[in-house]
Amino acid sequence: MALLQDFEAIVGTANALTGDDVARWSKDWSGKYSGEPGVVLRPASTQEVSQIMALANEQRQSITPVSGHTGLVGGTYAPGGVLLSLDRMNTIHDINTSARTAVVDAGVILSSLHDAAEAEDLIFPLTFGARGSAMIGGVMSTNAGGSNVLRYGNTRDLVLGLEAVLADGRIVDLMTALHKDNSGLNLRQLLIGSEGTLGVITKAVVKLAPKPKAYATAMVATPTLEDALTLLNRTQDATGGAVEAFEYMPRNYIDVYMDRFEGAREPFEGPQDINIMVEVATTTDTDVNETLLEIMSDMMESGMVLDAAVAQNESQRREMWERREAAAELAFWRQPIVDTDIAFPLDLVPEFFERVGVAMAALDPDHEPNFVAHLGDGNIHYSVYPSRDDQDLMDKIIEAVEDIVADLGGSFSAEHGVGLSKLNTMRRRKDPVALDMMRKIKGALDPNGILNPGKLIPD
Amino acid sequence: MALLQDFEAIVGTANALTGDDVARWSKDWSGKYSGEPGVVLRPASTQEVSQIMALANEQRQSITPVSGHTGLVGGTYAPGGVLLSLDRMNTIHDINTSARTAVVDAGVILSSLHDAAEAEDLIFPLTFGARGSAMIGGVMSTNAGGSNVLRYGNTRDLVLGLEAVLADGRIVDLMTALHKDNSGLNLRQLLIGSEGTLGVITKAVVKLAPKPKAYATAMVATPTLEDALTLLNRTQDATGGAVEAFEYMPRNYIDVYMDRFEGAREPFEGPQDINIMVEVATTTDTDVNETLLEIMSDMMESGMVLDAAVAQNESQRREMWERREAAAELAFWRQPIVDTDIAFPLDLVPEFFERVGVAMAALDPDHEPNFVAHLGDGNIHYSVYPSRDDQDLMDKIIEAVEDIVADLGGSFSAEHGVGLSKLNTMRRRKDPVALDMMRKIKGALDPNGILNPGKLIPD
Repeated sequence: MALLQDFEAIVGTANALTGDDVARWSKDWSGKYSGEPGVVLRPASTQEVSQIMALANEQRQSITPVSGHTGLVGGTYAPGGVLLSLDRMNTIHDINTSARTAVVDAGVILSSLHDAAEAEDLIFPLTFGARGSAMIGGVMSTNAGGSNVLRYGNTRDLVLGLEAVLADGRIVDLMTALHKDNSGLNLRQLLIGSEGTLGVITKAVVKLAPKPKAYATAMVATPTLEDALTLLNRTQDATGGAVEAFEYMPRNYIDVYMDRFEGAREPFEGPQDINIMVEVATTTDTDVNETLLEIMSDMMESGMVLDAAVAQNESQRREMWERREAAAELAFWRQPIVDTDIAFPLDLVPEFFERVGVAMAALDPDHEPNFVAHLGDGNIHYSVYPSRDDQDLMDKIIEAVEDIVADLGGSFSAEHGVGLSKLNTMRRRKDPVALDMMRKIKGALDPNGILNPGKLIPD
Repeated sequence: MALLQDFEAIVGTANALTGDDVARWSKDWSGKYSGEPGVVLRPASTQEVSQIMALANEQRQSITPVSGHTGLVGGTYAPGGVLLSLDRMNTIHDINTSARTAVVDAGVILSSLHDAAEAEDLIFPLTFGARGSAMIGGVMSTNAGGSNVLRYGNTRDLVLGLEAVLADGRIVDLMTALHKDNSGLNLRQLLIGSEGTLGVITKAVVKLAPKPKAYATAMVATPTLEDALTLLNRTQDATGGAVEAFEYMPRNYIDVYMDRFEGAREPFEGPQDINIMVEVATTTDTDVNETLLEIMSDMMESGMVLDAAVAQNESQRREMWERREAAAELAFWRQPIVDTDIAFPLDLVPEFFERVGVAMAALDPDHEPNFVAHLGDGNIHYSVYPSRDDQDLMDKIIEAVEDIVADLGGSFSAEHGVGLSKLNTMRRRKDPVALDMMRKIKGALDPNGILNPGKLIPD
């Protein structure tokens, strides 16, 4: 393949992998899209990415960018194709402590950025289970969410500037570190979340936040989801919006967790149906533990809280987080699974669960639900194991969930992205004028359709 | 004009204004772009906007959307052309107190939304001097900023969903109220700040915030800008980031204010060079007044604060705000003026003032500076009255400021938008690849170039 030789001339033969060397790029974390790429290119610089894209564009060769490969929607699936891996571009160029910004390459691992920020008494607040492998490039391309969105926003709220390579190899420089910048169309927000279909993000300026002086973390059992939302609102009001995480784990999730993880412990003495993990953080001298205890004991008296346990030390806090973050591994341990990534206005979450329960009882009475939710921002990872391996049944389940989502003004794609797995849903559910706009923008910026074709935007 | 009759058939003859009736649309707040439009269309609904655009597109008739007409950059300037005014579409459809969102038409006046939110013990935090006339449509089209950006973000951070009419009359429905939604390219953020070049924004879902229980507002004089930034950081740290406004007024601004406003009062007993207005707000029971007083008295002891006055009541607080908000009226009282709207990373603001002082002394020793700054977010409205009415001199002044902006990684267009007045700067200073991307997107979404042509994106 003459093209391979040309790619090798750009990145060096050692960084144009084929054959056995590409095995580790054969599937993402969902495990659902399995297939080896033909070539994996590992450029060392934006200039090399630019040369790769210019050549690919000339030769009409499709390119699929990949960084940590921890996606769950098949966004980096390209069997036999060319993957462009950003993993060698992994320098943290600058941590500016007075402006509270960092300049990072696309291949920087999320947890490395966490560590570098903490060393300066700052945090990069975006976090989720895959942080030890996920890289900034993928985080930005998918507009990743996670557990702290409630307090700090999604990825797109944390990125001030970026650099990207376009389909034709040109480099666009949007590397500003500004909080106010109205100089034309917002290309930054267009590229963030575009899943590699409009450009290859190579570098970013991200916001850092002050490191909290103290955390208060607790497990709380409530009789109803409405009571849980009351707990959220009261805690937000009492702390001035300092709730960092508000996670919901139902009974069946805890059961699976207990079953699968050695040394796993129940959150409470007796089993509870609604298990909430709440975390509050403060950068001031306020005693957030005290505040949280007061709210919980008050709600316990009025019967709105059934049980509660505050983490007494960092190791108890870690245990609470591990129980929640096990979800990333637990979700796909058993197949077949119908997994979703949906979001609602907060006040409609209880109605979703009521309605989906009724719908599932009708469709497949013997299904087993398995879900967790970032309840604080209305994002539910609602999954079910259907009672039988039947594609028709699974399609019906997805459509039933989608119907309720549409009815309640929710999103069928909250934080994992669209990739391949939600392409049909995009086609069915997204506003058709919006879809047409996306196709026109894609056509204008990548006229040969070489950047991650077949993802995000349905034909 | 047959086309006029067709427009009349859509909006009614009473709402297709010509002749004397269009006088009030002849200039924006800058006063620099004066010229009567040929026709002003005042549709009553999204459907009517859609019909207008479909007809205009068919007839290749340019359309310039306008709402409150309080812009400062000529973004709605269309002498002899067709303005599409959203002012009749002014319904606040919904204030959802539990989800803390509002659904509003593009023609809702900003202060009306403030009032409606406050009636529910909530706030819509975006605010600036023109709030009594500015409308949501223009606020969104220009991604307006203002004095509370520090705490709550720009317009784009406060909009969850929107509806817009495209150049060909199709309506795109992005009216979600979600905090997590990764369903395709982010068209919402593309339309926000597009200054009417990609679509006519007709409706929005905006975020509301809890109404603060208490404010602490003070005027503070510091010896240097560095000391002022220390005051900002200490206040942010002590309050957990609760600073809502941090405004800088230099001596010459106060002088002009004293001169022009009847009953105006000096902020301090003696004249000070650096006058800072700081406002902290709390939704909890914390005594923010106490916190602010402690910091100021501490800094006074170490010589970093020269004088300070805390507002003792709402009327004193209003006086402080009026002094700052007079800037909108004061900026253009005298001509010629070279006005800018620039932003920097916070830590580089003092360096900008040093360098611009040197540059101005060389270019025009007898100029009079007149500026205010949203110091807390690095946004400076740096203006000067040149010593003579000389276009060549004024061009040189602008270029000198731009050079320093580019050198310090700043923005030449922070919050007012580009419109006509910064088109040349866009051409000179914006990354050329970014400009090309904007042109391609514009061409893809408005192939006939009928939406607000000649604005925002230079040819």
